[in-house]
Amino acid sequence: MKGNLVIGQAGGPTMVINESLVGVIKEAEKHEQFQGIYGSKHGILGILNEDFVNLRQESEKNLETVAKTPSSTLGTCRHKPDEADCLKVFEVFEKYNVKYFFYIGGNDSAETCHIINEIAKKHQYELRIFHIPKTIDNDLLENDFCPGYPSAARYVASSFMGNDLDNQALPGVKIDVVMGRHAGWLTAASALARTNTTDGPHLIYLPERPIKVKSFVKDIDDVYAKYGRCLVAVSEGVAGASGKPLGEAIAKTKDSHGNVQLSGSGALGDLLAGYVEKHSRHQGMRVRTDTLGYAQRSFPGIRSEVDAKVARMVGKEAVRYALKGDIDGSITISRISADKKPVFETDLVRLKKVAKDTQDMPAKFIAKNGHDVTSAFLKYLEPLVGELPAKGILAQKKVKKLS
Amino acid sequence: MKGNLVIGQAGGPTMVINESLVGVIKEAEKHEQFQGIYGSKHGILGILNEDFVNLRQESEKNLETVAKTPSSTLGTCRHKPDEADCLKVFEVFEKYNVKYFFYIGGNDSAETCHIINEIAKKHQYELRIFHIPKTIDNDLLENDFCPGYPSAARYVASSFMGNDLDNQALPGVKIDVVMGRHAGWLTAASALARTNTTDGPHLIYLPERPIKVKSFVKDIDDVYAKYGRCLVAVSEGVAGASGKPLGEAIAKTKDSHGNVQLSGSGALGDLLAGYVEKHSRHQGMRVRTDTLGYAQRSFPGIRSEVDAKVARMVGKEAVRYALKGDIDGSITISRISADKKPVFETDLVRLKKVAKDTQDMPAKFIAKNGHDVTSAFLKYLEPLVGELPAKGILAQKKVKKLS
Repeated sequence: MKGNLVIGQAGGPTMVINESLVGVIKEAEKHEQFQGIYGSKHGILGILNEDFVNLRQESEKNLETVAKTPSSTLGTCRHKPDEADCLKVFEVFEKYNVKYFFYIGGNDSAETCHIINEIAKKHQYELRIFHIPKTIDNDLLENDFCPGYPSAARYVASSFMGNDLDNQALPGVKIDVVMGRHAGWLTAASALARTNTTDGPHLIYLPERPIKVKSFVKDIDDVYAKYGRCLVAVSEGVAGASGKPLGEAIAKTKDSHGNVQLSGSGALGDLLAGYVEKHSRHQGMRVRTDTLGYAQRSFPGIRSEVDAKVARMVGKEAVRYALKGDIDGSITISRISADKKPVFETDLVRLKKVAKDTQDMPAKFIAKNGHDVTSAFLKYLEPLVGELPAKGILAQKKVKKLS
Repeated sequence: MKGNLVIGQAGGPTMVINESLVGVIKEAEKHEQFQGIYGSKHGILGILNEDFVNLRQESEKNLETVAKTPSSTLGTCRHKPDEADCLKVFEVFEKYNVKYFFYIGGNDSAETCHIINEIAKKHQYELRIFHIPKTIDNDLLENDFCPGYPSAARYVASSFMGNDLDNQALPGVKIDVVMGRHAGWLTAASALARTNTTDGPHLIYLPERPIKVKSFVKDIDDVYAKYGRCLVAVSEGVAGASGKPLGEAIAKTKDSHGNVQLSGSGALGDLLAGYVEKHSRHQGMRVRTDTLGYAQRSFPGIRSEVDAKVARMVGKEAVRYALKGDIDGSITISRISADKKPVFETDLVRLKKVAKDTQDMPAKFIAKNGHDVTSAFLKYLEPLVGELPAKGILAQKKVKKLS
């Protein structure tokens, strides 16, 4: 089936989402089924506004530079289309002879694909829709990991390594808040910063395990008593004893998928630091907090090479699936060798399967005490992130005290 | 004069402060005047506590790994010694036969050196004291730049590049708060993130130019009206119309040099975002804030090679000055060629000259409008920071709208 192709990027940007875009473009250019290769500006909004760019006119060299550049070069959106939007999408697709639609995003984007696809079927419009996985949250079902996550994990682990070295130099309590609304995958990546047994993060709090403020402070106090310092990783989505995210109480805005704004504010970190200062048994200790911020998904120059390679691959593979006939779906990733240099392959599943739920960290990856990860998790994560910068520590042989 | 050598690290850590430490150790090892080479744990506190480590027992290989590792490997402190502390220092120095003291730090550390030196003179104790410059704030007098600053600037510029790409993808107002208590050098480095005329940061607020909240909001509104988005760089030390830092009103704690805690909290960013949300003429626009945090001085893997080289050099040079006879002082850095590959040389000035004041950004580096930098500043900074990662942007030729 010949026709034009539209590709869009949705949801939060990542460091490698442009790899998937370039994967789609370069693979599509090889096959004459694909006539126009159009980029939709700001995801689904670009279709509704008929705001397309011609991706055939990009030079090979520029595409490769774009692939290495963080964030969503076509622009993105968090718009959830309703039935009227979807009808408008078909109108536009028919007008522009669009027969292939690729959408790079998380589960909200898979849901968008699913909705459009259902309405396409209802209207017997021949359209092939592919969802290409991406999310730093790493919470898509059916996937070994989600492109974008390993690079964000690399940033988080590096940041914690630096923060731990800083905290060793100027001891105190340091609380770092990490992105991840529902699942603790990204916060858990902070564990990679450790190379010695006394290294932080000493405590890791995930949305999967609600916390009690009292035991949160006690955990910190206990570590502080032992090491004279404590580095804490807390997910922005961490829940209080009621099961409700602590950040929600102090957050203000929601997007159209109903998600409360947790990122882009230092409020949760400051709230937790305040708790600790007030209730700690070590009164007067130094307490600081950082909220790692958007750098987690957009910092240039920090990325995982495995992530980049797989992000490119899922873009290419989506195009290859599109050549195989009347199928739609979401591209998924499996790990077929579990050693240090993992090998991945893709599969195609029904859109609904990825759109429906999200995947929390399984119990086998969370320590029994509820505030750490397991070695099984590290074994899962290390090959995705790659080696971190070497950490040099002096041997520090004590000079004998003179009397 | 033969004797033992003590070296300490003070003030805020940097990405290259260990280069200076290793420079001192490796140079000192070459000269037999220096007998014991002792590291003082947590700056001056290590002397008071007689907590020394033997730096002659570190392997060459480990020293080179430590040099590349961010943060102060000996530990640091913000303790300002009083007269009693200084007397105790001499007691310890005499006991341990310490004749050479090297202290890596900012102007507070130069002041510490100066105080100890004055008391040494008073007691006719033969001691050679050298202050080795370091501060991400870049605010030491007598120096072309301060080691630590170019690497922090590289982190800040990279972070803003990523944040700008993120803000292009998901447009709105983004306010990023940057370290720098008194001087705007580090905040100003955000300007390096721009490669195209529409790139952010669109507004840069420095402590050198107090702001009025009303015009701050108007500046943002004007940029937003033009580009549909606005990326803002704000120094943590930015002052209100009264001339008093905005952050001070909401800060809680002070160190022993009388510095109010500005870092390690997201409060200033949240305060400014709140102002904008409340007073903007574009009601309902997306407003987010990040406080860049301790990663600015400790993120591993991001550093300026010029910075690393000069940081090593000032450590070595300090030891060479110590060989020249009865002199004390602060090592200073001059730039003797102003091209893309700058050449630097050192000089030695009296401790008092560096201890006394700090150096704000000069007027020639600040744009007349008060919320940007000049091209002269970029010419100053670019060779220090080195090339940033390439930024790829699609040509984005519009597809003609069909009627």
